[in-house]
Amino acid sequence: MATHKLLLLPGDGIGPEVMAEVQRVIDWLNAQGIAKFETEQGLVGGSAYDAHKVSISEGDMAKATAADAVIFGAVGGPKWDNVPYEVRPEAGLLRLRKDLGLFANLRPAVCYPALAEASSLKRDVVEGLDIMIVRELTGGVYFGEPKTITDLGNGQKRAVDTQVYDTYEIERIGRVAFDLARKRRNKVTSMEKRNVMKSGVLWNEVMTQVHAREYKDVTLEHQLADSGGMNLVKAPKQFDVIVTDNLFGDMLSDIAAMLTGSLGMLPSASLGEVDAKTKKRRSLFEPVHGSAPDIAGRGLANPIAMISSFGMALRYSFDMGELADKVDAAIAAVLASGLRTADIKSEGTTAASTSQMGEAILKEL
Amino acid sequence: MATHKLLLLPGDGIGPEVMAEVQRVIDWLNAQGIAKFETEQGLVGGSAYDAHKVSISEGDMAKATAADAVIFGAVGGPKWDNVPYEVRPEAGLLRLRKDLGLFANLRPAVCYPALAEASSLKRDVVEGLDIMIVRELTGGVYFGEPKTITDLGNGQKRAVDTQVYDTYEIERIGRVAFDLARKRRNKVTSMEKRNVMKSGVLWNEVMTQVHAREYKDVTLEHQLADSGGMNLVKAPKQFDVIVTDNLFGDMLSDIAAMLTGSLGMLPSASLGEVDAKTKKRRSLFEPVHGSAPDIAGRGLANPIAMISSFGMALRYSFDMGELADKVDAAIAAVLASGLRTADIKSEGTTAASTSQMGEAILKEL
Ligand SMILES: CC(C)[C@H](C(=O)O)[C@@H](O)C(=O)O
Ligand SMILES: CC(C)[C@H](C(=O)O)[C@@H](O)C(=O)O
Repeated sequence: MATHKLLLLPGDGIGPEVMAEVQRVIDWLNAQGIAKFETEQGLVGGSAYDAHKVSISEGDMAKATAADAVIFGAVGGPKWDNVPYEVRPEAGLLRLRKDLGLFANLRPAVCYPALAEASSLKRDVVEGLDIMIVRELTGGVYFGEPKTITDLGNGQKRAVDTQVYDTYEIERIGRVAFDLARKRRNKVTSMEKRNVMKSGVLWNEVMTQVHAREYKDVTLEHQLADSGGMNLVKAPKQFDVIVTDNLFGDMLSDIAAMLTGSLGMLPSASLGEVDAKTKKRRSLFEPVHGSAPDIAGRGLANPIAMISSFGMALRYSFDMGELADKVDAAIAAVLASGLRTADIKSEGTTAASTSQMGEAILKEL
Repeated sequence: MATHKLLLLPGDGIGPEVMAEVQRVIDWLNAQGIAKFETEQGLVGGSAYDAHKVSISEGDMAKATAADAVIFGAVGGPKWDNVPYEVRPEAGLLRLRKDLGLFANLRPAVCYPALAEASSLKRDVVEGLDIMIVRELTGGVYFGEPKTITDLGNGQKRAVDTQVYDTYEIERIGRVAFDLARKRRNKVTSMEKRNVMKSGVLWNEVMTQVHAREYKDVTLEHQLADSGGMNLVKAPKQFDVIVTDNLFGDMLSDIAAMLTGSLGMLPSASLGEVDAKTKKRRSLFEPVHGSAPDIAGRGLANPIAMISSFGMALRYSFDMGELADKVDAAIAAVLASGLRTADIKSEGTTAASTSQMGEAILKEL
């Protein structure tokens, strides 16, 4: 059995608590001989700053590069609100994405039937929702240069950010979206603002070309990002796969997440290109939720998004689709049994702490 | 009585139909001697392209500059999907905003009790919603340079858009937001992505300064634009005034609009700076909805957003707050009576065409 190397980066706030539950799942898989994972731990975000005055150390970057997959918790919190921009907690995450070449961010938004009531949207609008947001993650305004604040004198400053996209960046993220759609409901909606942005014009053009050249069997639809956002709130079930740029993806995936009524449930995968020789790809898996400093350390956090992110690692990095299905089924079963962490509790359900929830999922497995 | 000069730019799609209903209101106000409006008409968007191969002619730009207020319908449609980028329908609107210096876009999102059911959100989440989005409208990625597509050879192109904000631009939009908050519930939420964008860092810094210097009596809160978007979907009533940049404002105001369940109801105002001498400011008023080419010309369009935009003109450009209140009250009364255009119809209500709805509002007045 192949040994897989994992780097666990719990990060800040509730990160360590939810990561602990993944660690239990890993230990159990190893103990049962179902898989062979070797894990290392590292620091990222505020906790790396506290230890080393950086958002991630060179040593941990090297470990991330050497690992078969990175499992990431969450970063940030008011404690680090005033640290220098270059070493703010988020910088560690952004560096991981960029330096590992993780250009494809997959964010499924699934509404668990047991939780449809928790959504602020009407049940019939979101029940059964199952969409996949494919967000470009290493380009656009996140990384484009110049990215500066200049003092103009007279008390005036000028801030500049630059959105840049090259053809190949749009092509490769397009392919990820079309490939996923083929395994789903065969429809891709591309979102941009071509009526205002040149990057939107190019995005639209390249998506259309990739589709015409390689994916004629998939339905491609274009929506402007603002009306796309509206449609997401109005009638989200019209979508299957949504493909969009880094910044629109940030906004739209958070909105999609909110529709499901359970941010604490949603995983994500960030993938690099497949290496022609090794057939492997770099990857990082993280929950969509943040570090929730307000509830950190109190056993209130929902570990499902984190465990489910590990499930995505099994599926996308280690070709263990069946095991991933089992993880998903275990989560669904525990929810159906009525167990709930504080963020998703409702009348008639049973309260569970972070570790009780982790325990229950493990038992189901 | 002062004569006010209006330029009506109906535009494309349903623009002319809904503008016709505003024209009736204007005619009636003139006939009754309640106000004295002089109106001119012009072309913008696809209709300007069809006539002159531009998105707005120099003649109409001159009329817009000379007018006391511009009343704008909507632009765009599939017919013009393939016209050159520089003369696409939206370019006319963007030029009006930029050349008239309309930096402050006010987008109220109000959920009419009679329509709460039409929202995809649960009634208790949106009933009574009354928020004001203040969007910066002449800066940011909409107008920053460079804004280019370059051929790199090898089948590769590079698209660049530039987000630029200067201190003064953030200050003045901040003041608009704080001033509005003082007349409302005294709270401003500023949204940006300071964890990723330098413009977000400056935006946050300048808002904090303006607040500390001039508006200590107003509550200022900062949210990241992605979590802000989430909160808008999860619990929108937490907001009073939201102030944000051009692109985030585009996305967030559309989402806020969707919450109300009635895009066909929502007006907007775009305002320039107050001239030190004349005390006047340039202004443009337009519905939040688009040109809806699919239903154009069939009497199906809802004229309320357009009439309500004219109401905002009365309030913000002509200091006729009381008359504006009467327009709002007339709209509310007609809705309460059960009259509905197709977009907002529900069981037990009475169907109305565009002109029947306009007629009913006029009768109430
Ligand atoms: C933490 C932050 C830098 C990040 C982003 O903006 O990409 C987060 O919001 C996300 O969506 O993963
Ligand atoms: C038509 C388009 C250029 C415009 C924008 O992006 O600003 C519209 O979406 C709006 O919100 O007014």
